[in-house]
This record gives sequence, C-alpha cells and structure tokens, in this order.
Amino acid sequence: MKAVGINGYGTIGKRVADAVAAQDDMKLAGVTKRTPDFESKMAVEKGYPLYISVPEREELFEEAGIKISGTIEDFYDKVDVIVDATPEGIGAKNMEIYKKLGIKSTFQGGEKHDQIGKSFNSFANFKDSIGADYVRVVSCNTTGLCRTLKPINDLAGIKKVRAVMVRRGADPAQVKKGPINAIVPNPPTVPSHHGPDVQTVMNGLNITTMALLVPTTLMHQHNLMVELENSVSADDVIDKLENTPRVILVEASKGLGSTAQIMEYAKDLGRPRSDLFEIAVWKESINVVDGELYYMQAVHQESDVVPENVDAIRAMLEIEEDPAKSIAKTNKAMGIKG
Amino acid sequence: MKAVGINGYGTIGKRVADAVAAQDDMKLAGVTKRTPDFESKMAVEKGYPLYISVPEREELFEEAGIKISGTIEDFYDKVDVIVDATPEGIGAKNMEIYKKLGIKSTFQGGEKHDQIGKSFNSFANFKDSIGADYVRVVSCNTTGLCRTLKPINDLAGIKKVRAVMVRRGADPAQVKKGPINAIVPNPPTVPSHHGPDVQTVMNGLNITTMALLVPTTLMHQHNLMVELENSVSADDVIDKLENTPRVILVEASKGLGSTAQIMEYAKDLGRPRSDLFEIAVWKESINVVDGELYYMQAVHQESDVVPENVDAIRAMLEIEEDPAKSIAKTNKAMGIKG
Repeated sequence: MKAVGINGYGTIGKRVADAVAAQDDMKLAGVTKRTPDFESKMAVEKGYPLYISVPEREELFEEAGIKISGTIEDFYDKVDVIVDATPEGIGAKNMEIYKKLGIKSTFQGGEKHDQIGKSFNSFANFKDSIGADYVRVVSCNTTGLCRTLKPINDLAGIKKVRAVMVRRGADPAQVKKGPINAIVPNPPTVPSHHGPDVQTVMNGLNITTMALLVPTTLMHQHNLMVELENSVSADDVIDKLENTPRVILVEASKGLGSTAQIMEYAKDLGRPRSDLFEIAVWKESINVVDGELYYMQAVHQESDVVPENVDAIRAMLEIEEDPAKSIAKTNKAMGIKG
Repeated sequence: MKAVGINGYGTIGKRVADAVAAQDDMKLAGVTKRTPDFESKMAVEKGYPLYISVPEREELFEEAGIKISGTIEDFYDKVDVIVDATPEGIGAKNMEIYKKLGIKSTFQGGEKHDQIGKSFNSFANFKDSIGADYVRVVSCNTTGLCRTLKPINDLAGIKKVRAVMVRRGADPAQVKKGPINAIVPNPPTVPSHHGPDVQTVMNGLNITTMALLVPTTLMHQHNLMVELENSVSADDVIDKLENTPRVILVEASKGLGSTAQIMEYAKDLGRPRSDLFEIAVWKESINVVDGELYYMQAVHQESDVVPENVDAIRAMLEIEEDPAKSIAKTNKAMGIKG
C-alpha cells in the first residue's frame, strides 16, 4: 500500500492525516512538525510517526517529552506522496525539494496555481490529475464554489456567476487576527482572486467575485447569483443538490438559520473535531427569478478541502481513476454524505 | 417659523432633533420620551422641551429629577409637523392619531410603505412629497442604495442591479442582540425586501438584493453589481460620485480599509456623536468589467437618514420645493459634504 506523509501537521494537515488513516487503500507513514506543542504530542499519542522539520530542534522535542521518529530527511525516505500543508507560500519552495527527491505532492490553496502548475477539485477536474506529480487542491472558498457550481452547470448550463464571499476573519483558535468589530473589503478591489481561482479547475466558467472579512471564526458564507443557459426551477436545483455528494441542504426554519447553528449541527453529528466536510446550502435561499438562480451557502474553512486531498492522492498515484468511485470511497471512510 | 416635534427621542429621534435645531428655517418645538433615562435627562439639559408619551409615568420623571414640559397631548398642541421615530410598527399606529389631529408627519424605514402611502429619499423623489401629509423616509440601507444608485442611473442608465447587503448585527449601544459569532442570512430567502424598498422611491428600477447579519455594530456594508445601459469608465463613475452630495469616496490605501477605520475618520471629523451622515464608497472597489459596474460602500445605520428627515419636512411643509436647494441647506447646517 502506498505511503502518505503529511508535511505540516496544523489545521489542514492534522485533518488530512486522520482522513488518510481512515482509508483502506493508502497508509499514513508519518507527519512533520516544527514545534513541540500540543499538536505534536497528540500526533504521537495517536500513533502517527512524528518527524521534525527543523533538525536543530530535536532537543526541544526531547525536553517536552515528545518522542520523534526522526527528522524530515527520514520522513522523505518513508513516503510515496506528500500532502504539503505548510503555511501559505512555503509549499512552492518545498516543491523544489520534492522534485529533487522524486516525491509526488499535493499542495493547498494558499499556493499559487502558476507555481504548482495544476489545480484540483474532486468534482470539477479529477481526471486532469491522474498520474500527476504536483497538484494544488484549491482553497476552501474555491472548493465550496466548485461543489455547488459544478452540479448546477451540469443541470442547467451556467452563463455567468456573480458571487459575494463573506469570509470568517480568523479560525477559532487564532487569537492574533481580526477584525473584532468591522467589515473589511478584502481585497478592496473588485473582482477578487476567487473567480480566477475557480477557473483553474472549471476552465472557461464566467465568474466574478467580491470578498470581505467579518468578525466571525466559524465558517465562510457565500452569496451566489447565477445566470443560467437553460430554464430550470428552484425545485430542480434543490433536487440536484440533494443528490450531490459533499453538499447538504439546511433549513433556517428547522433551526439552522446561521453558521453558528450549522456548526452546532456538525457537533451533534459526532464528526472528528466537529468538522463539517460538506458545503451547507440554505434551502430557503434557493430561488430562480428571470432565469437567474440565487442561493446562499456556508463553508467550513478548516475541513472542506480534506476529502479533496484524499481524492487527489488517489488520482496522482493512479489508485483509482474514476472520480465518482474515489469520492464515494473517501466519503464512506470519513462518514461524509455521499 | 414652523414647529417640528420629535416623537421618540431614541437613536434616530435624538439625531433628527439636533439636525432640526441646526436649521434656520424651522424650529424644534419639543421631543417625547417614555422613560426617564439618560437620554431624557440630556434632552432637557440641551434645552429641548421634553414631553412624556405615557402620562401615567409623570411621577417616574419627577423622581428622576427630570423636568418635563407636559404630556404628549401638550406636545401635539405645539407642533406643525412630527418626526415619528418610535420603534418599528408603532409609527403606523400613531399615524391614525396624527390624522385625527391634522398634524403632518415623517415616519422611518421600519414602517411599511403601503401603510404610510408615500416613501421619500432626498435625491430620488423629493418632489413627490411636496405638500404631502405623511411621508416615510426609507431605511438606512435603502437610503444608502439610493444615494449612489441615483447618480449612477443619471450618469449611465441602470439595466439591472444586484446587491448583497452585509448588515451590522446590532447598534453600538445594543447589548441584547446578536450575532456574536455567526453569519446569519437575514432573510434566509432571496430576494430580500431591500430591492422592493428601493423601488418605492426609484420606481421601475430593476434590482435584486440578498441580505445577511454579521457580528459588528459600526456600519452596514453593501456589495453592488450594476449592469449599465451606456458605456462609462470607472473614472467617469468616480468623477460622478465625487460630485454627489452626501457621498464620500474613501481609499483603503489611505488607511480607510474597513468600516472601523471609516468610523474613526468620522470621529476625527468632529461631528456630533461621531456620526457619518455620508455614504462612504471604497474608491478602489469601483470597477467596470464587461459593461457592469462593481463597487462597495459603507452605511452608518444610525445617522444617514437624518438629513433626509430634514429635507422631507421642507418638502411636506413647502418650505422649499427645489430638492437641490434643500439638500444644500441641510448639508451646510449639519456640516455634511455638499
């Protein structure tokens, strides 16, 4: 079985580690960490081999009583493919090292498409990454857009998309970011980079986006206005999305009227870390007026890209070449709506 | 000089009281209050005659050491026109009383257009209210939309507007409202009521809106996508808005990249209560792509409708029938950008 290594055991890395460990057609060979913090300690407690990415720090880990399995050089020897979940901008630098060693890798949405050369979404363009060496899994926001726009495009054909992305200011554990009490156009220029990012996996889609930051930590929220090629009803869209994997419909009238309530629902589902891997679309918001589809959705920024990383590994290592089969397999192992 | 009374000396009422007191062609005859709180005390300290709207509460005001000038019945005797700034839904009930007494009144955006019969925005439809008895000044959000859409319509003709309204969850002094950490589609259905509300003053405008609440208290933020009839450049729009009263352009690159920084700017301007009566449009956000104009703006929900109430009084009492002259006069008295 192919060995997967996670370089960077942080917000995304630790989640992908668990997701890989849950699959039966790949194995988790180890994870890397710079700092002997609670995450390092818990990785070892879970039985994940821990490698340190800065060899000079070995003593710090010893002092903290955290047993390491070696340095990053040892890590490279153990893995067939790397999930690079290092902070934004580091991945592209790491790619040079991976290339020299001949190790394949996925990267995260913080890296630039042009530097990695290929972007990935399980639904939009899985097949483009079959056998590929370096693949960038698009960001949480772009993944969220693709998850619903792809099935809508299949259903009715998309003429033009306008989207306003209301983004969380920081993740729940981040205490040094804001805003605390402000709305921040981010970027203050229009259009934002999210539209072109969607186009890296849905080539040719006509999409314009605007983006802001607001004082919340739980989820991003997207407002979509989609001009359609073909006439469909709101019920047709509801039916399509109800039958789309990794998308759930939620109803404000049933107590799910905000991102806070959706994340409370995720807690009750009993998922690891109370994550919500699916994109939640507000059923009441789905409406078609004058041939234009409107809807609102919520994106759990810490976890929606996790199953996509697993699928990307399958495509790159040619473990599975049928996207639907990979998606179904990942979903089943992780308890995600199929 | 005609006598103006403010019924409901709260967030809007106290601001309109000051604005009326600042004009030289109308006088403030008094304000009403239900509760002997700090606002009542400060109204008396400012020299505004205070009338109590619940006569049975006279003792409470006495106990609090707040000198009243009479009850609401006495108030009605003193005024030629009322600014009704009572809580949402009360105004329509009060209108029945005003009708019996033959007193004209403005109402606020919380009342329903159909109940009041006529809606007002200084720029969009001032002349429709000349001599009118009952006029509803549209809400802060609708006022914000009209302030920029009207000049853009004059400049280039509007084919269709799409707007996403990111609204503040509560005003700064409100401690019993939320959300604290969530994004709330509000309403969760699309379109929201803001589009039809704009149409009460910009008849025939093709506009669709979506709206949310977020955890901030300072300002609303609007994201606009405007399909235009005629070809104009971003510079044309910038030039038009720079020459539009009650609209200011702000630049993220000059330290005004968020609603918090814009309200800090308002503090530095030295306005009463640090209000920002103007709509702030982010200059960087103004862009024209494929015949469609994009921009972002911020709306100070507590104060933007205040000058509009003054203009509405002038129209109703036929003190001034030229909107541009009334707007200029109000602006000069209040120190607003003309």
